[in-house]
Amino acid sequence: MSPGTPTDVLVVGGGVIGLSIAWKAAVAGHAVTVVDTRPGHGASWAAAGMLAPVGEAHFGEDALTALNIEAVRAWPAFARVLEHESGMAVDLVAEGTLLVAVDPSDLAATDDLLDYRRTLGLSAHRRSARECRAAEPLLAPGIRGGAELVDDHQVDNRRVVEALILACRSRGVTFVEDEVVEVTTGTDGVTGVVLGTAEALAGTVVVVAAGCRSGQLGGLPEHVLPPVRPVKGLTLRLRAGDGVAGLRRTVRGLVHGRSCYLVPRPDRSVVVGATVEEKGFDTTVQVGAVGDLLDDARRLIPSLEEYELVDITTGLRPGSPDNAPIVGRTGIAGLLMATGHFRNGILLAPLTAQAVAAMLDSRHGEHDGQGPFARFGPARFASPVRSGTGPVDGPSTGGAAPSDVGR
Amino acid sequence: MSPGTPTDVLVVGGGVIGLSIAWKAAVAGHAVTVVDTRPGHGASWAAAGMLAPVGEAHFGEDALTALNIEAVRAWPAFARVLEHESGMAVDLVAEGTLLVAVDPSDLAATDDLLDYRRTLGLSAHRRSARECRAAEPLLAPGIRGGAELVDDHQVDNRRVVEALILACRSRGVTFVEDEVVEVTTGTDGVTGVVLGTAEALAGTVVVVAAGCRSGQLGGLPEHVLPPVRPVKGLTLRLRAGDGVAGLRRTVRGLVHGRSCYLVPRPDRSVVVGATVEEKGFDTTVQVGAVGDLLDDARRLIPSLEEYELVDITTGLRPGSPDNAPIVGRTGIAGLLMATGHFRNGILLAPLTAQAVAAMLDSRHGEHDGQGPFARFGPARFASPVRSGTGPVDGPSTGGAAPSDVGR
Repeated sequence: MSPGTPTDVLVVGGGVIGLSIAWKAAVAGHAVTVVDTRPGHGASWAAAGMLAPVGEAHFGEDALTALNIEAVRAWPAFARVLEHESGMAVDLVAEGTLLVAVDPSDLAATDDLLDYRRTLGLSAHRRSARECRAAEPLLAPGIRGGAELVDDHQVDNRRVVEALILACRSRGVTFVEDEVVEVTTGTDGVTGVVLGTAEALAGTVVVVAAGCRSGQLGGLPEHVLPPVRPVKGLTLRLRAGDGVAGLRRTVRGLVHGRSCYLVPRPDRSVVVGATVEEKGFDTTVQVGAVGDLLDDARRLIPSLEEYELVDITTGLRPGSPDNAPIVGRTGIAGLLMATGHFRNGILLAPLTAQAVAAMLDSRHGEHDGQGPFARFGPARFASPVRSGTGPVDGPSTGGAAPSDVGR
Repeated sequence: MSPGTPTDVLVVGGGVIGLSIAWKAAVAGHAVTVVDTRPGHGASWAAAGMLAPVGEAHFGEDALTALNIEAVRAWPAFARVLEHESGMAVDLVAEGTLLVAVDPSDLAATDDLLDYRRTLGLSAHRRSARECRAAEPLLAPGIRGGAELVDDHQVDNRRVVEALILACRSRGVTFVEDEVVEVTTGTDGVTGVVLGTAEALAGTVVVVAAGCRSGQLGGLPEHVLPPVRPVKGLTLRLRAGDGVAGLRRTVRGLVHGRSCYLVPRPDRSVVVGATVEEKGFDTTVQVGAVGDLLDDARRLIPSLEEYELVDITTGLRPGSPDNAPIVGRTGIAGLLMATGHFRNGILLAPLTAQAVAAMLDSRHGEHDGQGPFARFGPARFASPVRSGTGPVDGPSTGGAAPSDVGR
């Protein structure tokens, strides 16, 4: 694929990652087809839309955190262009997040988190309980204190996928509402995909952005399939009725050791998220998950009691062995991976799309050792893990690909 | 309406009350039309299906309790014939209910309830915590004890309304999926109804069984409209997945002063009910109601945690000033009321249908002073309440109607 040469790009998966890639690839002049049974309605639909570079479980994942920080900074420009091309608002709110602690041990965790964020160069300011309640008057009187997380933003994830679909269409992206059961290959690399209907689509590049199902595609050797697993998440959508006070601030609560996001939207709804459950490919709405989220949310903001419960959605995040994304070329020419984004799919979509679009335009992956995903290529899992001959967490080989993977 | 003379009966409202009346009237040979925008999907759909003669708020309502006790006893025969005529099971379970108390004050309330039930001649046996857990192994270890309520049964309310619709159809009942905006009257009494489409339907008898909306019909003088108000209730439906233990017994829990029913169905689902909320005609699903029910249910049966939350439904019960139903003739010839069943609509449907069918067949209401609804006729509210000239809770005048109300 020489620069400027249009390529037939097949994107497997129409979540926020696949759609962002399709859009940017179409902008770059490629002929793009997205295959998904229901674009935008997987994990991207269930998400809360937090653009939070440092999650509660990310201590020690410095490389990933650095990537996430870069990703937050990429969002405003991405949103601006997306809104322009789609003609719809995606409601990016870059006003920071109020972190609040419910008990003394949550407050200690808050302090640890603040220290860690400062070492990363992120702005974060300790706030007293009184200051927290001044910032968000609906907070429960009993909260212990918290912090202002200046760099944690939010975007309406559902509007983002809807806008991406519009932007893709306006750029001529073709949507095929089906599933991909197999990737087809020839001696020169990928040749296309086979759909659930048994119909074959030809393509010179196949981008696997099928989230937690990316490891289940037929037609590929085992060692090429990404080691992703489903990590269930459940979010609730509440809405303030007439005469009920709306939430002002995005709140991240630590509630007796559990984390809970409350993300207000301009329509007076609030997204509450999210559970993190290892339950395989199960998407049922479970009593415990709903009950716990409702309890935590009400403990933070008692007046949510009066809100209407308008939606309960589950989704399956693509988790990888090191919690980091898997983005880059594979050992098969023309086969690219963009999966494993775990809890950061919305956050990382702009950078992922940009990186994959660059791969489509570069010859033979000569620049792949650079860029934000250099340490997050498929190669870090490919051979050693599957063959058992090398260390699982060996030094990153970067996204550098075998020769001639780009065409 | 002389005995044996077919009458054109218009039933306003297709809930469990209207459907039961329509079915029994059709069985008696009348030409029956039911008008409802969505038969069976109001309060009857939201119900849990408990056939409990003594609710937690019924102390002192002895006449109503006596009616309810008679109603429980009418259910087996009603269910048997309904199942026969509809060809579908309604899953009546006459195995009693296990009452359990969560804290010492709930246990004291249990003892009070037992005493009251014994004065009514109902069988009820005190059970230790250990005995309760032997009867239902999924009960939380911390429960304080409880009782076996021998006369509290359950039926699948949704199957009941579905079966009633089938039974009605098989008996030639006509369904009109619209709303009634007005009852039309002439010098001889009712002449029919006007629909939302402005179409008029003629009828010689109009039975108002429109639940909490029965007081809103146009075309009738104020003093004839029944004083019903909407009392919101919310129920949850949970389901045990594969490998998750199902609930054995119908459980009524007292949870820190709140009441919570857990009603298992043969398909391994459990209905959890129900809130009692005075919120006008609001049917939104509120966070507090869902959260409280989930909390109470989990406190009683911790393993419900693993159940799937499959349904949340709200409904508006028709509450009356004395919590008792309003069944009988009115001051307008041919106009019958069957509403105000509050929390006992499913329970009272068989008796109500039988009573109204008898009114259709009797001349001039000569037997109306007898029968189970003698003390629960519309006349007890009609003049005194509205004119302010008599006591609100004066001695019952029975269902005895003004002369010539039956035709």
